[in-house]
Amino acid sequence: MGKELTTRAADYSQWYNDLVIKGGLADYSAVRGCMVIKPYGFALWENMRDQLDRMFKDTGHVNAYFPLLVPKSLFEAEEKNAEGFAKECAIVTHYRLKADKDNKGKLMVDPEAKLEEELIIRPTSEAIIWNTYKGWIQSYRDLPILINQWANVVRWEMRTRLFLRTAEFLWQEGHTAHATKEEAVEETEKMLGVYADFVEQYMAVPVIRGVKTPNERFAGAEDTYCIEAMMQDGKALQAGTSHFLGQNFARAFDVKFSDKNNTLDYVWATSWGVSTRLIGALIMAHSDDEGLIIPPKIAPMQVVIVPVYKGDDSKPTIDAKANELAAQLKKLGIRVKFDNNDNSRPGWKFAEYELKGVPVRIAMGLRDIENNTVEVARRDTKEKKVMSIDGLSETVVQLLDEIHQNIYNKALAFQQDHISTADTWEEFEKLLDGKGGFVSAHWDGTAETEDAIKEKTKATIRCIPLNNKQEEGKCILTGKASKERVLFARAY
Amino acid sequence: MGKELTTRAADYSQWYNDLVIKGGLADYSAVRGCMVIKPYGFALWENMRDQLDRMFKDTGHVNAYFPLLVPKSLFEAEEKNAEGFAKECAIVTHYRLKADKDNKGKLMVDPEAKLEEELIIRPTSEAIIWNTYKGWIQSYRDLPILINQWANVVRWEMRTRLFLRTAEFLWQEGHTAHATKEEAVEETEKMLGVYADFVEQYMAVPVIRGVKTPNERFAGAEDTYCIEAMMQDGKALQAGTSHFLGQNFARAFDVKFSDKNNTLDYVWATSWGVSTRLIGALIMAHSDDEGLIIPPKIAPMQVVIVPVYKGDDSKPTIDAKANELAAQLKKLGIRVKFDNNDNSRPGWKFAEYELKGVPVRIAMGLRDIENNTVEVARRDTKEKKVMSIDGLSETVVQLLDEIHQNIYNKALAFQQDHISTADTWEEFEKLLDGKGGFVSAHWDGTAETEDAIKEKTKATIRCIPLNNKQEEGKCILTGKASKERVLFARAY
Repeated sequence: MGKELTTRAADYSQWYNDLVIKGGLADYSAVRGCMVIKPYGFALWENMRDQLDRMFKDTGHVNAYFPLLVPKSLFEAEEKNAEGFAKECAIVTHYRLKADKDNKGKLMVDPEAKLEEELIIRPTSEAIIWNTYKGWIQSYRDLPILINQWANVVRWEMRTRLFLRTAEFLWQEGHTAHATKEEAVEETEKMLGVYADFVEQYMAVPVIRGVKTPNERFAGAEDTYCIEAMMQDGKALQAGTSHFLGQNFARAFDVKFSDKNNTLDYVWATSWGVSTRLIGALIMAHSDDEGLIIPPKIAPMQVVIVPVYKGDDSKPTIDAKANELAAQLKKLGIRVKFDNNDNSRPGWKFAEYELKGVPVRIAMGLRDIENNTVEVARRDTKEKKVMSIDGLSETVVQLLDEIHQNIYNKALAFQQDHISTADTWEEFEKLLDGKGGFVSAHWDGTAETEDAIKEKTKATIRCIPLNNKQEEGKCILTGKASKERVLFARAY
Repeated sequence: MGKELTTRAADYSQWYNDLVIKGGLADYSAVRGCMVIKPYGFALWENMRDQLDRMFKDTGHVNAYFPLLVPKSLFEAEEKNAEGFAKECAIVTHYRLKADKDNKGKLMVDPEAKLEEELIIRPTSEAIIWNTYKGWIQSYRDLPILINQWANVVRWEMRTRLFLRTAEFLWQEGHTAHATKEEAVEETEKMLGVYADFVEQYMAVPVIRGVKTPNERFAGAEDTYCIEAMMQDGKALQAGTSHFLGQNFARAFDVKFSDKNNTLDYVWATSWGVSTRLIGALIMAHSDDEGLIIPPKIAPMQVVIVPVYKGDDSKPTIDAKANELAAQLKKLGIRVKFDNNDNSRPGWKFAEYELKGVPVRIAMGLRDIENNTVEVARRDTKEKKVMSIDGLSETVVQLLDEIHQNIYNKALAFQQDHISTADTWEEFEKLLDGKGGFVSAHWDGTAETEDAIKEKTKATIRCIPLNNKQEEGKCILTGKASKERVLFARAY
């Protein structure tokens, strides 16, 4: 079939692109930096989205929808947030095209249809949402507001990568409003926990939970919590963030509430988001040189049944048995595909589903059926086993769990193996240039030092882990006193 | 509680806005013509979306996602389509803001960040999608492509109405590619059927299926099929359209395939869509002067249980019984809310849920429990009944079905009563100005006459019904020969 995948060793970055494109997850588009999410990739995103949505609803959140376009005057109201995103804004300035007289059949922007005020395509929605909340909140009885939105956003990135960094991407953004600081902080932490649980339990990717340094905070936040994952090339990937916004947006949009004693105060806020970037994370955490390895719980196809016909006579027998098995699996809630397409041969199909990362492949020939067996291959270990058809669907359910656990354990072992300690600058540089991964090192706590380290090594402080051990030490760069280690890494 | 709803008789249009705003479905936003869909409205949309999505998947479709932004050169490739939407386009011309030196804390569009080619925010996605399909289709083996997308689109409308006509709206757009004309026409008709089934069976709104005249066709289509609903004020509302696009987009984007004999031909296309506008349709089809009436099958809350406490002692007993009943209802798949909020009184809650259109309300007091009964009120007829708690959940399931059937029948009777026949221009005008509704009349088949009638009466040809009876007649305006009647109406 000519998979012709680049190997990780040969060119990690090309390997990643090959998997995305040839695995059928996404495609480049005619629009700079934007991608097309293909049906297989979108089915994966749907499974991720639906699970996250359940988890949001289980924690008391509801969905709503706010406008795509943000008037410039609202966008700039929270200055830090505006400053942080100003350089990445797609801006609508006109609302009409007209026939271009000099170019038959072509259109041009109608200069007479210029907007009085420019509109920004949301890079994030705090501004438009807090401007709306102003009308919804008067009293403590109106709080908390626990709203999430599934939406597209645009950030005009100069260097884009499929899923990892695209000009337009899909995400969810939670925006909550609270009467007290404590409640808002609790919400921020709770949602970080939801993200960590989702990424670990559904994507099988272990994460480190931590908080960002002021340098790396979301623009406009008081505190940014994050989960950080480790990719197979030793680079970190920020998989989700949850922000405690303090009263910054309430101040910017003048959102006050009266408490039980009729005292007026600004409302406390959080926001939190994960995006289609997570798909990049799971690809790079699990996949191998043969193709994708998709975590079973969110896989669009969990099981594929490939018939191995021998002569036309065998088809009815095999098809009947395969359909029967598929029905049994579906009954147990398994997403199964019976691929009886006549146009391609079993060997081609085997390679194709390997490339697509389908967790379990069941091959079924006439002799198998005579023996009441099938051949079951798992994608993660590539192990093949002949198994009895009796009770097979229950076995497959167990196998999917095993695969989840196995790829999680493997990723966890890799992550653990890629947390190193450096006590000198030489060790620090050697680790970053060699093994990669997280480097746990002391830092003097200043933004200047953080910038200098980034400048010298391209490594950033990924996070200060939650419940971080306090220990006396000296900054890896300046030698100044430090009270705790932080995690550095080069990152996506 | 001060519902203070405008009545239909007093001001139909204000009545509609009152229901949307006070019923908690949506809110105005700071962006011209754009609305905020509030949690209650979005939950309704989610139920509609999820059901439609199931129906699309059951008919073999898959979801994908294409870019929001369309380069102008692609947008203008299919000339009729481009011409049709040119006047409604939001156009991105710049990709960066910068600090405004003359206004501290303000931002301005950076003139140096002007795009080489302007980007149009999709008003519909045929252009970007067919440009993508070009890369996906070579042979008949690549066909059909049966893709749907859930997305936001922007059409710069001058006169906007909540849900009915907003600059940004949410919708789904199916875009399919086929090897033969027959197959594409069949798909177009199939999806019209899916829409009609959904609107009738889930929204309880009867529709007329038909085709549009060339004047009213989607820009770029060979044929536009539609479903038309009748609102309580006698105006029609187009609830969904399904377009046979012929080979127009394949030609514009040069999308050819080789058939089994290796002959090259252009690919055949369809597209079809419904939007958040459907929410406007269901509001206006069913609701009354007391508030919304939400169809049971898609209602965010199907049942609300309101406790009627008498003294603090009664609370534990009532709560226990109410929670038990809620659990039983949930078990049967019913969306139920037990509103034990202490801040408002039962009477206020009754009015509130009436306004919100919850199909069934169950009131539960101490005496009821002693008698092993509750009071069940249905929203559609406002009938109240004392019912035994034994077997209540099964009774409620039946009742929800009854309510669906009742509001459908009521809307159907209204629709039937509002299809009138006119054989003279006087009758025609009198009907439009008086009773309203659909007027079935002969038309000479020319665009000029259609335009003239629209000019004189504001009525348009809503559709030529499917399987329309053929009969000789004379055009209502020109007296010229006609072979069939068509349905005229004033419309949203």
